[in-house]
Amino acid sequence: MDFALDAKTTELRKRLLDFLDEHVYPAEPVFARQLAEREDPWASVPVVEELKAEARERGLWNLFLPGELGAGLTNLQYAPLAEITGRSPHLAPVALNCAAPDTGNMEVLAQFATERQRETWLRPLLDGEIRSAFAMTEPDVASSDARNIATSIKRDGDSYVITGRKWYISGAMNPACRIFIVMGKTDPDAEPHRQQSMILVPRDTPGLEIRRGMTLFGYDDSSHGGHAEVVFHDVRVPAENLLVEEGAGFAIAQARLGPGRIHHCMRLIGMAERAIELMCRRTLGRVAFGKPIAEQGVVQDWIAEARVRVEQLRLLVLKTAWLMDTVGNKGAHTEIQAIKIATPASVEWILDKAIQAHGAAGLSQDTPLAELWAQARMLRFADGPDEVHKRSLARQELKKYREGAK
Amino acid sequence: MDFALDAKTTELRKRLLDFLDEHVYPAEPVFARQLAEREDPWASVPVVEELKAEARERGLWNLFLPGELGAGLTNLQYAPLAEITGRSPHLAPVALNCAAPDTGNMEVLAQFATERQRETWLRPLLDGEIRSAFAMTEPDVASSDARNIATSIKRDGDSYVITGRKWYISGAMNPACRIFIVMGKTDPDAEPHRQQSMILVPRDTPGLEIRRGMTLFGYDDSSHGGHAEVVFHDVRVPAENLLVEEGAGFAIAQARLGPGRIHHCMRLIGMAERAIELMCRRTLGRVAFGKPIAEQGVVQDWIAEARVRVEQLRLLVLKTAWLMDTVGNKGAHTEIQAIKIATPASVEWILDKAIQAHGAAGLSQDTPLAELWAQARMLRFADGPDEVHKRSLARQELKKYREGAK
Amino acid sequence: MDFALDAKTTELRKRLLDFLDEHVYPAEPVFARQLAEREDPWASVPVVEELKAEARERGLWNLFLPGELGAGLTNLQYAPLAEITGRSPHLAPVALNCAAPDTGNMEVLAQFATERQRETWLRPLLDGEIRSAFAMTEPDVASSDARNIATSIKRDGDSYVITGRKWYISGAMNPACRIFIVMGKTDPDAEPHRQQSMILVPRDTPGLEIRRGMTLFGYDDSSHGGHAEVVFHDVRVPAENLLVEEGAGFAIAQARLGPGRIHHCMRLIGMAERAIELMCRRTLGRVAFGKPIAEQGVVQDWIAEARVRVEQLRLLVLKTAWLMDTVGNKGAHTEIQAIKIATPASVEWILDKAIQAHGAAGLSQDTPLAELWAQARMLRFADGPDEVHKRSLARQELKKYREGAK
Amino acid sequence: MDFALDAKTTELRKRLLDFLDEHVYPAEPVFARQLAEREDPWASVPVVEELKAEARERGLWNLFLPGELGAGLTNLQYAPLAEITGRSPHLAPVALNCAAPDTGNMEVLAQFATERQRETWLRPLLDGEIRSAFAMTEPDVASSDARNIATSIKRDGDSYVITGRKWYISGAMNPACRIFIVMGKTDPDAEPHRQQSMILVPRDTPGLEIRRGMTLFGYDDSSHGGHAEVVFHDVRVPAENLLVEEGAGFAIAQARLGPGRIHHCMRLIGMAERAIELMCRRTLGRVAFGKPIAEQGVVQDWIAEARVRVEQLRLLVLKTAWLMDTVGNKGAHTEIQAIKIATPASVEWILDKAIQAHGAAGLSQDTPLAELWAQARMLRFADGPDEVHKRSLARQELKKYREGAK
Repeated sequence: MDFALDAKTTELRKRLLDFLDEHVYPAEPVFARQLAEREDPWASVPVVEELKAEARERGLWNLFLPGELGAGLTNLQYAPLAEITGRSPHLAPVALNCAAPDTGNMEVLAQFATERQRETWLRPLLDGEIRSAFAMTEPDVASSDARNIATSIKRDGDSYVITGRKWYISGAMNPACRIFIVMGKTDPDAEPHRQQSMILVPRDTPGLEIRRGMTLFGYDDSSHGGHAEVVFHDVRVPAENLLVEEGAGFAIAQARLGPGRIHHCMRLIGMAERAIELMCRRTLGRVAFGKPIAEQGVVQDWIAEARVRVEQLRLLVLKTAWLMDTVGNKGAHTEIQAIKIATPASVEWILDKAIQAHGAAGLSQDTPLAELWAQARMLRFADGPDEVHKRSLARQELKKYREGAK
Repeated sequence: MDFALDAKTTELRKRLLDFLDEHVYPAEPVFARQLAEREDPWASVPVVEELKAEARERGLWNLFLPGELGAGLTNLQYAPLAEITGRSPHLAPVALNCAAPDTGNMEVLAQFATERQRETWLRPLLDGEIRSAFAMTEPDVASSDARNIATSIKRDGDSYVITGRKWYISGAMNPACRIFIVMGKTDPDAEPHRQQSMILVPRDTPGLEIRRGMTLFGYDDSSHGGHAEVVFHDVRVPAENLLVEEGAGFAIAQARLGPGRIHHCMRLIGMAERAIELMCRRTLGRVAFGKPIAEQGVVQDWIAEARVRVEQLRLLVLKTAWLMDTVGNKGAHTEIQAIKIATPASVEWILDKAIQAHGAAGLSQDTPLAELWAQARMLRFADGPDEVHKRSLARQELKKYREGAK
Repeated sequence: MDFALDAKTTELRKRLLDFLDEHVYPAEPVFARQLAEREDPWASVPVVEELKAEARERGLWNLFLPGELGAGLTNLQYAPLAEITGRSPHLAPVALNCAAPDTGNMEVLAQFATERQRETWLRPLLDGEIRSAFAMTEPDVASSDARNIATSIKRDGDSYVITGRKWYISGAMNPACRIFIVMGKTDPDAEPHRQQSMILVPRDTPGLEIRRGMTLFGYDDSSHGGHAEVVFHDVRVPAENLLVEEGAGFAIAQARLGPGRIHHCMRLIGMAERAIELMCRRTLGRVAFGKPIAEQGVVQDWIAEARVRVEQLRLLVLKTAWLMDTVGNKGAHTEIQAIKIATPASVEWILDKAIQAHGAAGLSQDTPLAELWAQARMLRFADGPDEVHKRSLARQELKKYREGAK
Repeated sequence: MDFALDAKTTELRKRLLDFLDEHVYPAEPVFARQLAEREDPWASVPVVEELKAEARERGLWNLFLPGELGAGLTNLQYAPLAEITGRSPHLAPVALNCAAPDTGNMEVLAQFATERQRETWLRPLLDGEIRSAFAMTEPDVASSDARNIATSIKRDGDSYVITGRKWYISGAMNPACRIFIVMGKTDPDAEPHRQQSMILVPRDTPGLEIRRGMTLFGYDDSSHGGHAEVVFHDVRVPAENLLVEEGAGFAIAQARLGPGRIHHCMRLIGMAERAIELMCRRTLGRVAFGKPIAEQGVVQDWIAEARVRVEQLRLLVLKTAWLMDTVGNKGAHTEIQAIKIATPASVEWILDKAIQAHGAAGLSQDTPLAELWAQARMLRFADGPDEVHKRSLARQELKKYREGAK
């Protein structure tokens, strides 16, 4: 057992921290200004492209992707880097071409796409030329149970025809988003885990209606293409757009899940670290009742509790990454659930305290805290509500004792 | 001891519930549509005026205001009515001319204004013709300690000149908002509770700059005039605009506080009740893993806990109203703090569970829950953070034992 | 609505407080000494009898019992008195002949016993000459669902024969305990709520084995007869010992429940008040890091939170008492569940903080806190675990919306 | 970074688990019986000696002690073994000669004692022939701040004379306890961290009065010599009994702290694991409302949450052990505080839920849960209350930002 980062990670960490200090943090106010001034309310802005160019030149590009197509890092090596990107979550991940949902989509294409699909879609994604969306969640069903997905994908000659309604499709309104990976049902009569398929749908396909942006606690996340409600009105694509084969959808979704969790959780930990920093700075600098509020016992209690929680959390996420590297996604299944349960809850708590320490400023647009809080809160749902994951994890635990229970 | 509502309250409650059923709930979608279509992004919309006319005709007008100018209800009589308005918090309070911050401002004017001030400002406020703002909170100081207020109000001949910066001034951007009650310092050398004064500043006075709308989480609350950052650049008003006298500001603020707390807390309880209703309806109607999620033990735990919390809370707020009626604001001081501590925390918890029970819809614009949550969260700050109130309440408790402690 | 106590309650409250000051608190160390010196480790001690005599003389006797046999108070009148007895929970209730389980048992006998049964058992109980036990809970079943009770009561000629095992039968080892009210099944084939009966079993009946004292955490509660495991080996009693009739057991148990809840909850609130007092006194008198720990922000947070919780709780219990008086146990069913859920949890929290404020002394025999904590913790089970009550309360809430749910 | 145990630990773990299965668990009922039957209510019992002999023969002896005197394990290697002993906390640690407070005392003697002191006291301790006590905590001061210690140690010719009162001195009443390490003040005028000294006091020294056993939630812990109140009435010992030199007490106490924390925390984690196991077995085997309570959502929520918390906790404790091995106690200072804050709180929570899942049995002597709970609760105080550690940890965190705070 060894808790030290390896040399490669240590070196990349340093380079990444330098990149944030030298380029990302200074770009934050520029980003805000450009967003306010843009014409298309969903478009990306120039400073992002500049950061991408700089990051690529520095070799900080596609770090998330294992194998030859990416930086070739293990999950355990990438995790501490993902954490750092969480400190500036609107700029750092996209600057490194490591932003969701593209990361998961690129992994899917790298693993499951045909040569031609990869050439058409994966290549420009890897080069940061286009963005993508992952269309799974539906408003009318409990999507945490993939078997509930109702969108239909029907074979019709050389085509598939897609009909259904999706929402909270992140990034879909960004004009740079060119391709959707859509989950739907090809065979409602197959056994439950073989009913679903995934298919590639270019964004400009006729019948694909992007109806509106959904909000998260008032935020439309327009800087990253928002969260769209999307309707598929008999959308027709060539049969070759199907990923792998009919019935493979569930398995692909499962494969996509593990690394995504690590990324999300580590970014959240980075947000928590930033929140702790802001909480410390604010309370040191703000005086009430004759002394800095950092000297109030209740504030110190928050800070200590935040530190204690984040240290535990990080270790669990790193161990999960290590398990994925050593025994695979399946072997790490319980831990992947555990980090989904633990991370948003702890980070939400920390953000709440950081907000409280800021007074009204903590709720406002003048600190990043309220928006980060909304992100953390959202992740208590994304990929299924905590309650579903707890239920499943408990069943796993109970299974150990089920036989021979008296 | 008697826990039954009196006849007058019971009768008004019934009329108010009818008004909501017949007019307010049906107006909610109209309101949303008119807001989306209006030109001035901070203006009120026609349906609100229609509701006001209807409420006034039904005798549901200025219920909050005791004495002859208002409906003449006690705090204990008004409280259960305020609760009901919380069920539709964007429409019901304003429809009844019982919306903050006008309520507190009208109370101040009714109690402390000269005949002429009342004629000019209180009359149109009572008639619902104009709106008002209360400019107290400042970005640069811990405003929960009124002694920190930094805005200066300086006598200069027949005028006062106001210089300073305020933020989170609710309603200020509504074009119907015509008058500000501004808190500032007239004498920094007086004893701490006599340094502050309040003064009336018409919104179109030169030098009064409304700089921007502050957000709460992602909400700008534009339907009610937002929360403005306001800068006073040497704003000059006639000396007769001062309320009462120099040094009276702190005392007026204290007097304004008690009823405001009751109103806020009861409206929050109304929001909690609506959230419980929505949570029940949603979980009864949504199926996962083969049964309505209302049958999940964890969901039932939330519902029970919500009911148990809201029942305790309501009784404490009602008792506080009763104390204010029987022994006055000062005698009810501890309880007024207690409801400020208890209500936002409990209601926030309930809203969080109601959101979780709704999945992504709970975070979205398709239910009122996320926005109500942001309101409840904000009230953990408004009038000072919980921590300050707890500190003060604890000192009160400790005082009982301070002498003779061993 | 009126939150003031009536004249009678106010007067009795004063007399009771005087009695505690003059007799009960001074008796506490005597009680401890006599307990340590007694020979029978389960016996009561002389000082208790002295207190009983004094209380009776002062007219503070059987206050819990409505009607002519008792003090004739309503639930709402008795509740604030029960609270006061919670301040010295080992002495005050028994001194007033208002200690569980006798209170519930006397109510049962007053309501359901024959003239002869009342003469034999109720009379000496009312006079404080004997004690009693209520034998319901069983180790092998989830007793919160009365339908699970497995002890059998079989008719055999002029007798009933009782066979089964019970535990946590409070008071049973006190030599003064002369009578058991036993719940068992007379007809396993009847409909679920008519299978159970209650029967009177004198403690010296052959076959009634008192096997051992169960502990609560490390406490055996020997000062009040402990919590016995009791085995009924074909215990035979005359048929006339049955209460009411075969099948009436469930209904009697329900009737016994309501007032018992009020008593338990109000006594717990009294314990919480004593804990707050002890916490304040201790933290005012103890210095760490250069100042009384009462000045630490975290300690003040506890004190404030404790005060805020206990105020809410008390109102809910009082309202429940009022409901029982005005609409009956059945009409107050939801509230009776609510106080069972809310009270032990809140009081346990308060006791935990009071303990923490005392350091090691809080865990020891030198303060009453640890033992009070164990009582509060136990009440998260007694009459069924919180979870069962929450489930039932939630179903009640959901029922309001079940029809027409969409 | 590597989360796998090394070969040596893995092998010892297996041997230790075998030892528990083959000897320790079967000894538990024997232990209980022998305790009930012994004459001296504080004495140890024969089965313990048998287990010690067996453990020693199996090479499972003094595992806690690094270097040649002990098993030579690192903290990181010993930690997972300490966890396992927590599964049977009354037998396993003592069987392996790894029980507190002997472990800390042996470490102190190994590091700081003279050759002669080691011969006289360390040797028989290492051989498990005698037991020892650590006399630091005092009833009259906040002992978490060592500077408050009031017991005096005064030089008088060739002797030191000790005067003072201590309590919660664990193990002191065990007749096998032969030696006390006593902390006191030699020089009240020295600088704060040089006022204290430690001195060896044989238990039979005249003037050393063992006054009474203190309880923990009703438990006297008599199976391990209890927690004594001890009075030193001018106790005189030879000057050579002093450890190191006058003024070294604080430094020795600090050195003793780190490994002790790891041991305590890992044993607590072992208790938590046992509690989870018991909770699973119980809820699988107990039926209510027609199905095993393990199928209730609320119970599953507890189990999942318990698993998620314990996994995070263990990693943090292991990392702390690793830090102590690699950068020393001082470098691991923050983490040593963090595990003191996190562990008792999380484990207490888990035990509470396991108790609740057992109904009344969970509070009784029929499961180990209530007693384990009391241990965990006690550790929220031992070595100083959580609040003190949080305060200190927060200050460390704030220090990072103190300069340049704006």
